[in-house]
Amino acid sequence: MTITITAFAQSPDRGRGLARDMRVRWALEEVRQPYAVRLLTFSEMKAPPHLALQPFGQIPTYEEHDLVLFEPGSIVLHIAERHAGLLPEDTDARARAITWMFAALNTIEPPILDREMPTYTERDKPWYAARLPILEGRIRTRLDELSHRLGDADWLDGAFSAGDLLMVTVLRRLEGSGIMDDYPRLSAYVARGKARPAYQRAFDAQRAVFTAASAR
Amino acid sequence: MTITITAFAQSPDRGRGLARDMRVRWALEEVRQPYAVRLLTFSEMKAPPHLALQPFGQIPTYEEHDLVLFEPGSIVLHIAERHAGLLPEDTDARARAITWMFAALNTIEPPILDREMPTYTERDKPWYAARLPILEGRIRTRLDELSHRLGDADWLDGAFSAGDLLMVTVLRRLEGSGIMDDYPRLSAYVARGKARPAYQRAFDAQRAVFTAASAR
Repeated sequence: MTITITAFAQSPDRGRGLARDMRVRWALEEVRQPYAVRLLTFSEMKAPPHLALQPFGQIPTYEEHDLVLFEPGSIVLHIAERHAGLLPEDTDARARAITWMFAALNTIEPPILDREMPTYTERDKPWYAARLPILEGRIRTRLDELSHRLGDADWLDGAFSAGDLLMVTVLRRLEGSGIMDDYPRLSAYVARGKARPAYQRAFDAQRAVFTAASAR
Repeated sequence: MTITITAFAQSPDRGRGLARDMRVRWALEEVRQPYAVRLLTFSEMKAPPHLALQPFGQIPTYEEHDLVLFEPGSIVLHIAERHAGLLPEDTDARARAITWMFAALNTIEPPILDREMPTYTERDKPWYAARLPILEGRIRTRLDELSHRLGDADWLDGAFSAGDLLMVTVLRRLEGSGIMDDYPRLSAYVARGKARPAYQRAFDAQRAVFTAASAR
């Protein structure tokens, strides 16, 4: 039963592992499932064959026999539910880990994306600089709360889970912003995630795509 | 086994059912589970007792014996997994319905919130009017894609599911913007959701909180 995912043929993150296929690759490595990757150019992403799989023309998708899924959160949850290693066995602890998956994607990532997107789309606008402190303030509110909840624990709720996997990938989007320097607990948390062998394997795999594309 | 959720004592939406407790109420009504509601003022939401349940000081939360959950998406999924009526029985169809839950919250809702939030926080800024068409354009891109995928179907993938429940509540945030007028298929889809008896019961329940608060 082959799993096939899609990823950027030429990732705009230049191989830094910030594209969303990284979330799926990491999850598959944690549960030791092999997978194939189909690389897509930007024009292929917006063409009918891919839109039939992913109505919004994005990566990643996940194909397994007749099943087609999209949305990285949904794909990671699907993987975590079917293979041991990303969700606790206890049903209550499992529900709490899933809560952290949603918290990563719906509470922490939105203000981070709201600050990141204007750096691509509104940098030439007269309001760009004036809005930055507002956007950064919203991120800091959430990081203050998240750091407080994490406290001195290694992971958000017991053992490493799919919730931590998504939260680490979300916080990584702040790399280079300087914001994480003010959050030593969260920085150490991200470092713990990145030190996991499965993370490293996933990172190297996506990096190899960028390196090969650059060499052409 | 009593389920208790939290909601605004005085909802900023003035009883229009746009606060996120509506998503949980609707899910509970679809599966016919009774629930209690604990109402919170804004200062109670940000005080230590609630922060112990919800680290970001928001509503809704979900309590059931010793289990505490937050994030509406996670709560709706928890309800849908434990009671019949919100997810198909077939495992592939179930995974696809969950994909639509994530699509509602992570692909459709973010650009809608990005347009809504400045109406509260940046209306007095000199850039407010100039940014609106940019923000509205991003919403329209997603609605074009969503409408195309929905086509002439009643629901996003087979029977009504938790994915439709979340998508309808997300699209409802555009009420009053005029944007949905250009999407007759999506408007009819939202109308089908709102016509469900469970939606009506949930709506009336949250509306009664606002009416009672206003009468005091």
